Amino acid sequence: MIIIMERNATKVQIQRVIDFLKDNGFQVRHNIGEVHTVIDAIGDKTTISPDRLSAFEGVKEVKIIREPFRLASRDRKNDDTVIEFANGVKIGGGNKPISIVGPCSVEANYDDLLEVAIAAKEMGCEFLRGGAFKPRTSPYDFQGYGEKALQFMKRASEETGLLTVSEVMDANDLPMMLDYIDVLQIGARNVQNFKLLQAVGKCNKPVILKRGLASTIREFLLAAEHIMYNGNCQVILCERGIRSFDSAFTRNLMDIASIPVIKKYSHLPIIVDPSHGTGQRYLIEPMAKAGLVVGADGIMIEVHNDPENALSDGKQSLSIPMFKDIMGRINMFNKNIHYEKNCLSANTR
Amino acid sequence: MIIIMERNATKVQIQRVIDFLKDNGFQVRHNIGEVHTVIDAIGDKTTISPDRLSAFEGVKEVKIIREPFRLASRDRKNDDTVIEFANGVKIGGGNKPISIVGPCSVEANYDDLLEVAIAAKEMGCEFLRGGAFKPRTSPYDFQGYGEKALQFMKRASEETGLLTVSEVMDANDLPMMLDYIDVLQIGARNVQNFKLLQAVGKCNKPVILKRGLASTIREFLLAAEHIMYNGNCQVILCERGIRSFDSAFTRNLMDIASIPVIKKYSHLPIIVDPSHGTGQRYLIEPMAKAGLVVGADGIMIEVHNDPENALSDGKQSLSIPMFKDIMGRINMFNKNIHYEKNCLSANTR
Amino acid sequence: MIIIMERNATKVQIQRVIDFLKDNGFQVRHNIGEVHTVIDAIGDKTTISPDRLSAFEGVKEVKIIREPFRLASRDRKNDDTVIEFANGVKIGGGNKPISIVGPCSVEANYDDLLEVAIAAKEMGCEFLRGGAFKPRTSPYDFQGYGEKALQFMKRASEETGLLTVSEVMDANDLPMMLDYIDVLQIGARNVQNFKLLQAVGKCNKPVILKRGLASTIREFLLAAEHIMYNGNCQVILCERGIRSFDSAFTRNLMDIASIPVIKKYSHLPIIVDPSHGTGQRYLIEPMAKAGLVVGADGIMIEVHNDPENALSDGKQSLSIPMFKDIMGRINMFNKNIHYEKNCLSANTR
Amino acid sequence: MIIIMERNATKVQIQRVIDFLKDNGFQVRHNIGEVHTVIDAIGDKTTISPDRLSAFEGVKEVKIIREPFRLASRDRKNDDTVIEFANGVKIGGGNKPISIVGPCSVEANYDDLLEVAIAAKEMGCEFLRGGAFKPRTSPYDFQGYGEKALQFMKRASEETGLLTVSEVMDANDLPMMLDYIDVLQIGARNVQNFKLLQAVGKCNKPVILKRGLASTIREFLLAAEHIMYNGNCQVILCERGIRSFDSAFTRNLMDIASIPVIKKYSHLPIIVDPSHGTGQRYLIEPMAKAGLVVGADGIMIEVHNDPENALSDGKQSLSIPMFKDIMGRINMFNKNIHYEKNCLSANTR
Repeated sequence: MIIIMERNATKVQIQRVIDFLKDNGFQVRHNIGEVHTVIDAIGDKTTISPDRLSAFEGVKEVKIIREPFRLASRDRKNDDTVIEFANGVKIGGGNKPISIVGPCSVEANYDDLLEVAIAAKEMGCEFLRGGAFKPRTSPYDFQGYGEKALQFMKRASEETGLLTVSEVMDANDLPMMLDYIDVLQIGARNVQNFKLLQAVGKCNKPVILKRGLASTIREFLLAAEHIMYNGNCQVILCERGIRSFDSAFTRNLMDIASIPVIKKYSHLPIIVDPSHGTGQRYLIEPMAKAGLVVGADGIMIEVHNDPENALSDGKQSLSIPMFKDIMGRINMFNKNIHYEKNCLSANTR
Repeated sequence: MIIIMERNATKVQIQRVIDFLKDNGFQVRHNIGEVHTVIDAIGDKTTISPDRLSAFEGVKEVKIIREPFRLASRDRKNDDTVIEFANGVKIGGGNKPISIVGPCSVEANYDDLLEVAIAAKEMGCEFLRGGAFKPRTSPYDFQGYGEKALQFMKRASEETGLLTVSEVMDANDLPMMLDYIDVLQIGARNVQNFKLLQAVGKCNKPVILKRGLASTIREFLLAAEHIMYNGNCQVILCERGIRSFDSAFTRNLMDIASIPVIKKYSHLPIIVDPSHGTGQRYLIEPMAKAGLVVGADGIMIEVHNDPENALSDGKQSLSIPMFKDIMGRINMFNKNIHYEKNCLSANTR
Repeated sequence: MIIIMERNATKVQIQRVIDFLKDNGFQVRHNIGEVHTVIDAIGDKTTISPDRLSAFEGVKEVKIIREPFRLASRDRKNDDTVIEFANGVKIGGGNKPISIVGPCSVEANYDDLLEVAIAAKEMGCEFLRGGAFKPRTSPYDFQGYGEKALQFMKRASEETGLLTVSEVMDANDLPMMLDYIDVLQIGARNVQNFKLLQAVGKCNKPVILKRGLASTIREFLLAAEHIMYNGNCQVILCERGIRSFDSAFTRNLMDIASIPVIKKYSHLPIIVDPSHGTGQRYLIEPMAKAGLVVGADGIMIEVHNDPENALSDGKQSLSIPMFKDIMGRINMFNKNIHYEKNCLSANTR
Repeated sequence: MIIIMERNATKVQIQRVIDFLKDNGFQVRHNIGEVHTVIDAIGDKTTISPDRLSAFEGVKEVKIIREPFRLASRDRKNDDTVIEFANGVKIGGGNKPISIVGPCSVEANYDDLLEVAIAAKEMGCEFLRGGAFKPRTSPYDFQGYGEKALQFMKRASEETGLLTVSEVMDANDLPMMLDYIDVLQIGARNVQNFKLLQAVGKCNKPVILKRGLASTIREFLLAAEHIMYNGNCQVILCERGIRSFDSAFTRNLMDIASIPVIKKYSHLPIIVDPSHGTGQRYLIEPMAKAGLVVGADGIMIEVHNDPENALSDGKQSLSIPMFKDIMGRINMFNKNIHYEKNCLSANTR
């Protein structure tokens, strides 16, 4: 931790910071510059938070040297986290990228969901997604079919062998949801709903955590840290676009570079959601590939058997024929990248 | 609702949109431009959402004419909402701006809280704030003292006559919280935690709703709409800064213009929080005044009896002497603005 | 300057940074933390730029302690810069806030401009603004009348005694412009057109420098530094709104807090432009007051004798009757703030 | 053009808008909704700008249906623009992606530049880049060697056969620059320096136009329109990252999706600059590939023979060995994508 004092900080103010740090077991050195005094403190930040120090009079800024996430950090665990399912599917660690497809919301008719699930299975996808509880900006929009939707998800899973993903919005729903689905999802709007993060942190199920619209990479990893801190280390991050100043052509701005950045600093797997990330059908294929080429461990795509009549997010949903077309090309692309990766690692041995 | 078709939309695609609109009871007219066909639809948007239409093939964009919030809108209720408390305090409707002060978190020692409450009372403030449950970016930071903190809040309220405000993070805590406090607060990170919005929407207590870091004004008013739609119309909005590209000198960027914008489109009261809005003590006084001069119905300020030892947000907390100094000037300022306002309304009669 | 090394930086990498710093005359100390090594360097940053250091292998981050602007900084010159004109008008240093009003563009008819100038004079304003060269996002929009417009400006100045402000877009126009106008303006889009900054830096005329849509406060002050570095210290900063994620209700987002921030770190005067800052007539009065209450040294407002027929920016232009109304209230408000300021300084003596 | 009236717009206000539109040759229809009246106007927007209409009293919003750029639009020219050089190199139109490499600034020693140029040639790159005039945020940073640098560029071009790219900052430098270099570059900070856009618009040389830090896609294409409107249609767009709220790990945020968006709406070629886009060496390879996989027509990469001693942008410059390594993999990748593309077009015939 580095403490930068204001240019007019008094000797007394400087000494009080130094004393406080020493009292808390830090090793302290300080340099008196022409303008600013700078204090270096080496020690265990779990004992005092940088916020404490920035409240001292005369302190201009406190600079953290070490990233504040720990369990999520490569400093702590250098090897990639790999999440493995009973049927042998694996996420992360350089395994073949997985695909999660399905409608935004599960709707009234089971056969519609099944049709999508069958197409997904046919194209080699591993996961079926479908919302039972929908966070909607307006209270006048469709909010999901709840438990009935989850029953449909389980049935489709049994018929196709796909694993299932569904969003949890309320910790009280967790016990019920755990009966039906394989992977919990935390939506972008709940990325700092800390009570919910704690609750899924106490479950023994993998969690897909979506990046918030205003989450910095550091805050995103700290949200994962909340889950891990409560005991659940099976966290799969998901880049799904952030808020920018231009929403004329895309709903959100996909931060593709966040994927290799996160790979550098964290061992957690990360997937990419071009459907929410762009909000535009024609951008799904290129942006899925962009995510995969920089190292994403999988993709999540919205597919609906009849997008024009979808109860939510129809605009960005692929119809089944479009999906098959695109998924075929993505599968080919994954094979090529994977081949290239293997060549590379063979060469670098 | 206006539907703009893609430049290469086919006649069949155009006709399908028109038929769908007519089937749903809309009056429809369309204009075929040189490049784009434009369809105007007049009718009740509660029956179909614009999202539905944007999923139709050949649709480029759906433009909503009427703002999507209704209960929160001045179209529906032209008069300012005034929230009145048993002790006669009123928020909104051009009443004297209220002041909410107190520590970020209620801490271990009751006397510390009382000291702040007494100072607040002395300076004519109406509300004491204090966190019992703290949403923290890092799991390693202090999370609040829970019910014990609320007991302290109630005791301080009884000793001073101040009304109390505290943040709710979990709907399950509501029954307990309602016993202790007068105004519920929803934090910025929970502004789209729709389950929590629904839960406070079913309470009969005023709610302070903080703007999210990435909330547009429209989304912010739709979050209020979620509360109102569930039955609770006592919503007080709070501008507390949004995320911007520059955080070198202030923690957030206060959108002061949002206050008169919201006053134009909504009847709800709105207050301003310069402590979180800027994260800097020296900016609290000027930014409180900036909020008040454009029409805010009150301010919320963090005050701590010993900021250097605060367990959270010490950096932006005022000490008691600083607070008294600043609050004295703000009180004077409020009197002046209020005087000016009365002159104006006398003149415009 | 503080250099934070990567967690896996080698001893050789660390030593090379230390040697380089020492060779350049810096005093160096370093702390080896559990994870990161941190190097403190005290010395004259004019000799080497932090960028140089961040290019060294093993360097994670270089943190500047002292703000990079110098001539613009209060560290260098503690007293407010006051810009004084031949007619006694002063900008900055706690003098009465000045007002700059006029049309976005000077148009074809001189009498239209004169009508605005007379109203401005009548309301006690000091400056007439009017564009001769217009930076327009689209090449199909009106680009200004050039020298003819400047002749009109000068004539209106002679008839009313107002000082004149006009934007320079091309250094080649400067010699001609200097004959006609009193204050040069650099528009937001040219805030990092360094050739133009250098050129006005060599003029002996005050310059209004508008903040760019994506300028951080630091970059904004560095743009002023470019002008000052070339010899012209008569720089007036202007906050006119920055780009944000929400442009549904306002064209830009006014960063009102930037005014007291800049006052703290720089001695330069700063004014506020609510016309461009919001793009909405109804927000001009409140946002002008918000700027003034936090310490702005003046306001700039667009006024047009016939906004519905303005060739540019009609939407945000006030008509003459609206302007008189609003300006009357702003004048009253300035008197009140000024009165309050005098009381304060009397009390704090 | 669609004009949405305020909910309380009067009949007179509505009629005045309609009359104005008709007087300007527009066909007009209007729909009176429950709350808002909406006016559709079909006609030639070159005669009146939407801004004119938004200034009318009672107008809430003017919505443009057709994109405001014309020469840059696919509406006007459906086929991809291909820019061809004397030596047969082509940019755009599905041709093999080109590579532009070189140091940020050309420095004092010619051999350093030549060393980079030879490596670039060896790796099959087509263009050498190098700055002679450097736009620098701080006046204390290195500003480039001017004409001497351009002479070096020409000499390196003659020795290697590479085409050359260099940034123009001042229209007055153009006649001189045209003698030395093959492609002009407009930097991000000058993207709305309209005088400079006009000046390069009158040159008969290809221009690389970099996206501004705060440019929307629409504004970016309108900046290209300024160049084309002045007669030069050889514009190559360049995505190089925009400003976002998170700059902890990357200097800018690369908007990879902008590439397929621009491909859809414009016929102009677009390349990607991961060096400036990320500011981090380790992100150059993945982000170059991300740009190429979504359809970029080329890449621009900073390479320096001794990054630790570069006078600018060393942090993001590749050393020559790193460059060769990365460029080898990118060349392979381009071949694979190209192969895939050919298969696709063969299949879709």
